[in-house]
Amino acid sequence: MFRSFQELCSALAASDKSLLAVAQNHLNNLTKPVGSLGRLEEFAAKLFTIYQGKFPFETDPALHVLAAADHGVYAEGVAQNPQEVTHLMILNILSGGAAISVLAKQNAMDILLLDAGHKGVCPEHGRARKINALEMSGNIAREDAMSLELCEQLVLAGANAVCEGVRKGYGIFSIGEMGIANTTPATALFCEYFGLDPFEITGPGAGLSKERIAHKAKIIGQALHRHKNTYPNADALQVLASLGGFEIAALCGVVLGASALKHPVIIDGFISTAAYAAAYSINAIVKDYAFLSHASAEPGYQKIMRCLGEKPMLDLSMRLGEGTGASLALQLLRSAKVIYNEMATFADANIEIDTYLPKYHADGQ
Amino acid sequence: MFRSFQELCSALAASDKSLLAVAQNHLNNLTKPVGSLGRLEEFAAKLFTIYQGKFPFETDPALHVLAAADHGVYAEGVAQNPQEVTHLMILNILSGGAAISVLAKQNAMDILLLDAGHKGVCPEHGRARKINALEMSGNIAREDAMSLELCEQLVLAGANAVCEGVRKGYGIFSIGEMGIANTTPATALFCEYFGLDPFEITGPGAGLSKERIAHKAKIIGQALHRHKNTYPNADALQVLASLGGFEIAALCGVVLGASALKHPVIIDGFISTAAYAAAYSINAIVKDYAFLSHASAEPGYQKIMRCLGEKPMLDLSMRLGEGTGASLALQLLRSAKVIYNEMATFADANIEIDTYLPKYHADGQ
Repeated sequence: MFRSFQELCSALAASDKSLLAVAQNHLNNLTKPVGSLGRLEEFAAKLFTIYQGKFPFETDPALHVLAAADHGVYAEGVAQNPQEVTHLMILNILSGGAAISVLAKQNAMDILLLDAGHKGVCPEHGRARKINALEMSGNIAREDAMSLELCEQLVLAGANAVCEGVRKGYGIFSIGEMGIANTTPATALFCEYFGLDPFEITGPGAGLSKERIAHKAKIIGQALHRHKNTYPNADALQVLASLGGFEIAALCGVVLGASALKHPVIIDGFISTAAYAAAYSINAIVKDYAFLSHASAEPGYQKIMRCLGEKPMLDLSMRLGEGTGASLALQLLRSAKVIYNEMATFADANIEIDTYLPKYHADGQ
Repeated sequence: MFRSFQELCSALAASDKSLLAVAQNHLNNLTKPVGSLGRLEEFAAKLFTIYQGKFPFETDPALHVLAAADHGVYAEGVAQNPQEVTHLMILNILSGGAAISVLAKQNAMDILLLDAGHKGVCPEHGRARKINALEMSGNIAREDAMSLELCEQLVLAGANAVCEGVRKGYGIFSIGEMGIANTTPATALFCEYFGLDPFEITGPGAGLSKERIAHKAKIIGQALHRHKNTYPNADALQVLASLGGFEIAALCGVVLGASALKHPVIIDGFISTAAYAAAYSINAIVKDYAFLSHASAEPGYQKIMRCLGEKPMLDLSMRLGEGTGASLALQLLRSAKVIYNEMATFADANIEIDTYLPKYHADGQ
């Protein structure tokens, strides 16, 4: 277990890039035209590198960490849905009726729900854990979302959920969230971390009208203004405490924890990507361990991908969150895994490499 | 079993589009913002319609029909690899070492390999079946790929593989192929069916240089010229016999057979899409039953998608064939299935629709 944020950060180390060449050589010797499995090969090489060159490597079992929270900025009228929906959806997720419930079952991932602080009682449930006593974060338009101490504590809780998962044998992690109004802090974080304009990247979330999107952008602008005045030289963690949310802080911790323990972590859509952006801003090394699963339909998403230098694995116009995109991406990573571990090489198949694709092997393309 | 091509064609009927509205209503009542699962909802509604409104519907088990063949046009120097690779890959697929072997296992699909006519002996194997005695198709630059009679026979063999599969309990089908040089007949078919220019859409296949792509386009142009002179008024089946290939004809039959029997069929990449284009040109009703799984990296693919009015489910820069893209898409369809069958409705979750997303439900968006 990580005992402090500092200890967690000290544990972060880049993956061994020399293994990428080993992986590429192996992939080039499999019975297929070189490079013909496209991004599946990229994913396989990255997994092999994350698992430190173990062959065959194993991803499973998979643990999906879903953090839920409520947000003080809800009071500014930035969300379509009543705040009570956060609690109702926690119940729905745990009782098996939510999108992520059925997708996690179908795609063989276990769920751990972190109640990061919401309006309602955390249900007694083997797969739910309360990590914060507060009902909701501060209204970021007017005050910090949380204290720096609470932020560190939530990040640590997320990272330690991974620690515990690794101890239980989980090999791959994913993140997802539930929290009415949470596209607002997520957008504020993207703006602050990447210097983006809220009027350009603010979107409808669960379904705001044009007028209300403009209002939401104004509220985000107000939060950014307040933040810049209060913390002219904020570091990445202070930005998260000031403009983020409880579930975003916890998920940032999951990303940091998985990276520190050298396990892959699959990032879901818009809000999960904000948690990833916070972790990335704390230490860009997390890029070595993360898979960005799904393009969000929010308008700012493409710009944010350019800032992160990423191209998501899937684009199915989804905008639900919870980890729904991550659950689909997990199956793609399993497919990448079996390509790497189980395909025959040219030698296995008694095909001479000089016969099959001589040009490709000659120039290594 | 279909006894003739005519009988197969007579069995084709559109799906009942009134079920799409039923599906949309159901999806709108699930505990998520309306439309927030994006294309997963589109896939779910299409599956529900294909399965004629059965609820819950079941897709599995899944049968992947992989047709392999050799091509006379190989003699024109249009391919990167030796023709022997077709046979070697048939052995590799059946012995479990090919990409599709490991992906089919990982993604729970059974393989049926149709030897549609290739240079080599079809192995004795429970999952392989020889459906044609010839060694390779005619060289389309100079002659018909096959007679109209053989073409009908191969289409029928593909359709009857589905018949037999349905009798054995398979609920969903997919197609894939193996055949050195087969991007050439595939490209010729796209050009002829959709009026495209071979110099615009011809690509590298398994890896030709720029010069050889130009040569390949010239050969395809020659084939199209020969075809137009010989059959100024060819119907879609005649085009397939004249410019296609054995495996493409068999897979066209799988698409027609699955559609006639009202089962979904997943189309793999470039060559499988040519088989789909042939089926679509015979009767566009197949569109009601088909899922185009994967964007091919071949340069003409986007244009072809516009001609077919389709947007593929995945885009991972894959260009291998065999059904590798289809195997990944199958998992997405299973995820769409559980969304439809297993998610809680607002009533189940004790959430009043008027509370959750009132606007969305009021205007039905």
